[in-house]
Amino acid sequence: MKVITTIKEMQAEMLKQKDMGKSIGFVPTMGFLHEGHLTLMRKARQENDIVTISIFVNPIQFGPNEDYETYPRDFEKDQELAMGENVDFLFYPSVEEMYPNPSTIKVIVQERTNVLCGKSRPGHFDGVATVLTKLFHIALPTRAYFGKKDAQQVAVIQGLISDFNFPIELVPVDIVREEDGLAKSSRNVKLLPDERKQAPTLYKSLEMAQDMIEKGERDPLKIISLVKETIENETNSVIDYVEVYSYPGLDPLEKLEGSIIIALAVKFSMVRLIDNVILEIK
Amino acid sequence: MKVITTIKEMQAEMLKQKDMGKSIGFVPTMGFLHEGHLTLMRKARQENDIVTISIFVNPIQFGPNEDYETYPRDFEKDQELAMGENVDFLFYPSVEEMYPNPSTIKVIVQERTNVLCGKSRPGHFDGVATVLTKLFHIALPTRAYFGKKDAQQVAVIQGLISDFNFPIELVPVDIVREEDGLAKSSRNVKLLPDERKQAPTLYKSLEMAQDMIEKGERDPLKIISLVKETIENETNSVIDYVEVYSYPGLDPLEKLEGSIIIALAVKFSMVRLIDNVILEIK
Repeated sequence: MKVITTIKEMQAEMLKQKDMGKSIGFVPTMGFLHEGHLTLMRKARQENDIVTISIFVNPIQFGPNEDYETYPRDFEKDQELAMGENVDFLFYPSVEEMYPNPSTIKVIVQERTNVLCGKSRPGHFDGVATVLTKLFHIALPTRAYFGKKDAQQVAVIQGLISDFNFPIELVPVDIVREEDGLAKSSRNVKLLPDERKQAPTLYKSLEMAQDMIEKGERDPLKIISLVKETIENETNSVIDYVEVYSYPGLDPLEKLEGSIIIALAVKFSMVRLIDNVILEIK
Repeated sequence: MKVITTIKEMQAEMLKQKDMGKSIGFVPTMGFLHEGHLTLMRKARQENDIVTISIFVNPIQFGPNEDYETYPRDFEKDQELAMGENVDFLFYPSVEEMYPNPSTIKVIVQERTNVLCGKSRPGHFDGVATVLTKLFHIALPTRAYFGKKDAQQVAVIQGLISDFNFPIELVPVDIVREEDGLAKSSRNVKLLPDERKQAPTLYKSLEMAQDMIEKGERDPLKIISLVKETIENETNSVIDYVEVYSYPGLDPLEKLEGSIIIALAVKFSMVRLIDNVILEIK
């Protein structure tokens, strides 16, 4: 595995691979890798000649009161884990390398941002779309792999790729969970011991909602109430949102039908967690 | 020469060329090709394995009172001219093909737009940056060729490419002029016979300014006055702007030094024309 820290070298290396007709699978990450990331890498490994990952904690997608400074980092361990998955190239740029000058041009996400995480994180998806536009041009992937845990992000990136005709196939990959159901996340290390015991309730509440829908419930408000009550009763977390939308359009629904997402975000004392299920309703 | 009208086919064709390690020279145009465009194609032909051009009158870079509807078009003749320059691929999409849905994401140009043409054409460069982002992803060029006549456009595109790390080399190409000095433009056909006789004054005034600088003048205001007076005395056109800036930064100058641009835009009865000179001052 080759670790590359400059844009110039990375782009030259990827262009060389493309000139040889190689397909490139790309997994952009913010590091502190866990099983969720490794699953993306394995899928990329199966489907491409070359696997490239990036580790970059992107400052412009964090708000002023968010956890950019304290976002967990462990490059040594990340490097080992990536090597264990037979990654070919690891791109690990500094902030100065990625943003050497104030930007003269901005990418603004206009749709799908006024709901879910976008509502409480203004500018977050502009930052995500900007860094991915850059990373896509640097890593030149054939396929890019994203976890469905950030379902809104997947929807926004699908919009980015199709609006701007990036020659890239987006591959969304299922959420990887702990045995007790908690969605894997780099941020889980920030849960206090008691909170860690409560956290599986997030997924449990989504499973209960899914059950209710399978039994015939079609009213989004009833689903939302069930999830909220479950979380409020069984955890000390503060609910940021529990919402139901069409997916990937993220439009509000009066009645559940078609492809839908039930998504939630809650705040524990040191960390905000998200989770979701995407369902196909006949 | 292969004419392609769909994004899907164009992108697949270009990916195939890249997989074979071919370099691609790209000349994006709005058609009604003239000697200026042909010069770009010849340069692309010299420097690349494959030459691709696009012909697309991009509606989103025209303002509501601008000449989108009446912009001159002649696809038959364009096709012949491109064939004459040994172009390999001509991409000729419809508006519906390029913009099938309302965009969910926008590219906003934040610098270098409040001067020159940007000032009187709000949103123009956002439209240019958006269509080029799309065209770059569709045509996948190694090098992209632009005429220096649209000097502000060249500066904005250089910003787009470097901010977003497009793996593309921008090649700016000198202005091609008629024998009497008038810069070649698709819009010149809209000059009335009398105006056509006056139009060479635009370049003549820029040459006079250049002369004045060579003789030691370093005050931008004096240069601007000379150009304005010359145009006012010798043509019936209405001056839109005559401005002097650093180039490519497009910052205002108190004193002429370094790389500078003297640029102008004037309105004749049916058409607005632009011209410029870029000078290196020691």
